[in-house]
Amino acid sequence: MAKQISDLKLGILGGGQLGRMLIQEAINYNLTTLVLDPDHDAPCKHLANTFECGSITDFDTVYKFGKKVDVITIEIEKVNIEALEQLEKEGKQVYPQSRVIRLIQDKGVQKQFFKENDIPTAPFQLANSREEMITSNFPYPYMLKQRKDGYDGKGVMRINSVADLDHAFTSPCLMEELVDFEKEIAVIVARNANGDVKTFPLVEMEFNAEANLVEFLISPSTYPEPIQARAEAIAVQIAEALNITGLLAVEMFITKDGRILVNELAPRPHNSGHHTIEGNYVSQFEQHLRSIFNLPLGDTRTVTNAVMINLLGEKGHDGVARYQGLEKILAIDGVYVHLYGKKYTKPFRKMGHVTIIDQNREAAIEKANFIRNTLKVIS
Amino acid sequence: MAKQISDLKLGILGGGQLGRMLIQEAINYNLTTLVLDPDHDAPCKHLANTFECGSITDFDTVYKFGKKVDVITIEIEKVNIEALEQLEKEGKQVYPQSRVIRLIQDKGVQKQFFKENDIPTAPFQLANSREEMITSNFPYPYMLKQRKDGYDGKGVMRINSVADLDHAFTSPCLMEELVDFEKEIAVIVARNANGDVKTFPLVEMEFNAEANLVEFLISPSTYPEPIQARAEAIAVQIAEALNITGLLAVEMFITKDGRILVNELAPRPHNSGHHTIEGNYVSQFEQHLRSIFNLPLGDTRTVTNAVMINLLGEKGHDGVARYQGLEKILAIDGVYVHLYGKKYTKPFRKMGHVTIIDQNREAAIEKANFIRNTLKVIS
Repeated sequence: MAKQISDLKLGILGGGQLGRMLIQEAINYNLTTLVLDPDHDAPCKHLANTFECGSITDFDTVYKFGKKVDVITIEIEKVNIEALEQLEKEGKQVYPQSRVIRLIQDKGVQKQFFKENDIPTAPFQLANSREEMITSNFPYPYMLKQRKDGYDGKGVMRINSVADLDHAFTSPCLMEELVDFEKEIAVIVARNANGDVKTFPLVEMEFNAEANLVEFLISPSTYPEPIQARAEAIAVQIAEALNITGLLAVEMFITKDGRILVNELAPRPHNSGHHTIEGNYVSQFEQHLRSIFNLPLGDTRTVTNAVMINLLGEKGHDGVARYQGLEKILAIDGVYVHLYGKKYTKPFRKMGHVTIIDQNREAAIEKANFIRNTLKVIS
Repeated sequence: MAKQISDLKLGILGGGQLGRMLIQEAINYNLTTLVLDPDHDAPCKHLANTFECGSITDFDTVYKFGKKVDVITIEIEKVNIEALEQLEKEGKQVYPQSRVIRLIQDKGVQKQFFKENDIPTAPFQLANSREEMITSNFPYPYMLKQRKDGYDGKGVMRINSVADLDHAFTSPCLMEELVDFEKEIAVIVARNANGDVKTFPLVEMEFNAEANLVEFLISPSTYPEPIQARAEAIAVQIAEALNITGLLAVEMFITKDGRILVNELAPRPHNSGHHTIEGNYVSQFEQHLRSIFNLPLGDTRTVTNAVMINLLGEKGHDGVARYQGLEKILAIDGVYVHLYGKKYTKPFRKMGHVTIIDQNREAAIEKANFIRNTLKVIS
């Protein structure tokens, strides 16, 4: 009899909150999970069958870790690609595939991929050095983004004039036209090895400008159906062009003149899909498992309105985390708290999230606002 | 600042599927969990922060285990009560309270409690020995139940005449009038230390006669509202009479003449509440945590129709478990698989459960029937 999901060992590179929520679902399938993370106190530590403290960017560590498992996945893109390539050559299943991670790791290559595949995206130009930025004729103002290792708003700055380049990144960058957007939106799409593809409904996001993190997510979107369909079609087009196996989060802008521009990709469960745990029939975490184990994809429809807020460490607090206001918010119906098991808080650290579901969209938003003002992570 | 849930250590006596699903929820609150179970390969083994292999009926083992935690709960009633009493004396929080477990451990005492509190239940008589059964004038036929340690249909037999007593139990028993029931029903009620009480809506069960286990559960019930209200009121009455802190499952019969009779109690998450994970706004597991940590109780309303089927080991199969038909059933929308992490299957062993949700009740039942015929646990 063929091996089935309950016989298999899943290796996860990265042991943060995404891995943690993935394991919460993996439990239902008797999956054996192994996690590699450099933080000896990572959120997955006590949940994985085996937790290994080690570098996810070191060839030997990743390679040896991968040899112990049947299927390898990631919860962060910054991993050692060469080790994953070698493991693939030796027949291990790596989902998303190493070539997809390699492409997405580099925002320059990602943008070129969009261009080559007629995916709508903001105009851009690459620059290998500060020299090249200064001598380029790319029009000011623009966004300067490091090609590698940027995340959660790190590695991004606005350049208004040549003077700003004095403090600019020196590593290879991408210069990108400013997008006059009305809203940031996202579609999560899943694709299994059989080639089945399913999208979650479009969601809308509001960012915390100071932290440059998603602060507020609303599902489903109230954009007119043709816009939703267009955004979902773009996500499918990208998943198929990439030939990805696994989950893909597609972050997009809707411009004030109604165009959709793709911002960036994440080939894994993503912050813009946390609401699916309670707000949709299948969660992004279960869908990721179904896609990487080539099982039929689940029903992505929304159950009802969901609003997700990230629970960020309060400014001015650095130390052992305490959750102020927890009891007050649990008194509200339809409130789901997810703490990430991080012992220490610091300003803007992602410490958890809260999802609010309500059949009345405005009521859900109102509750979310109350929670945002009530629940605080302090030290 | 007062201690809060994320600072506390929860000790769970028993490391089976109930503990496993409790931990899946406890993760969201950063709870530190310690589990004690005699099976070194128990379903909770890899999920608890600390798993201790040891007897839950031995005084010293339970006492020492309890000293390490802040709050102690159970997932099975057969635990050492004296150790829990001692821990309570020393200020540990034991929920449900030792006196509630003691009362429920003994079906004779449980029945007397019903009688004293005007809880409707089938007429009964106690017998300490086979002698007493033979000489009693309790009318045949009746059900003979061992007062202690019966579960999942074990420790129960039907006595048609004095001849049957030749093979009857010799331990203290309870003789109970046969109930001509139309349906077995259950209500789960939660009560926190503040005295807040909330019931989950009434559910209907169908039993596997051969295994004497719940095979099929339907939520919500379609009994007329007054019957549902009556069943829920009985559950609240019992929770308040017991002064319980924690979850209480109340199993009842509806007789063919429309009476409700209480069958038995379980002071913990229960098989008749598994559907709440997907079928209700709050699950019984989260509700148990909320009640034992004295947090506001969650919204127990049903999201939509849910049917739960227990996944029992197939007859004639004994050995390492395999799950036949998994891929087929995952192709159906609204199907949620929960495997319990048990390596070995044997006939009628509870290996997992599946919940089906559907806005159309008949469709949910039809899907459940298909799944019952398709998903098999074999070796």
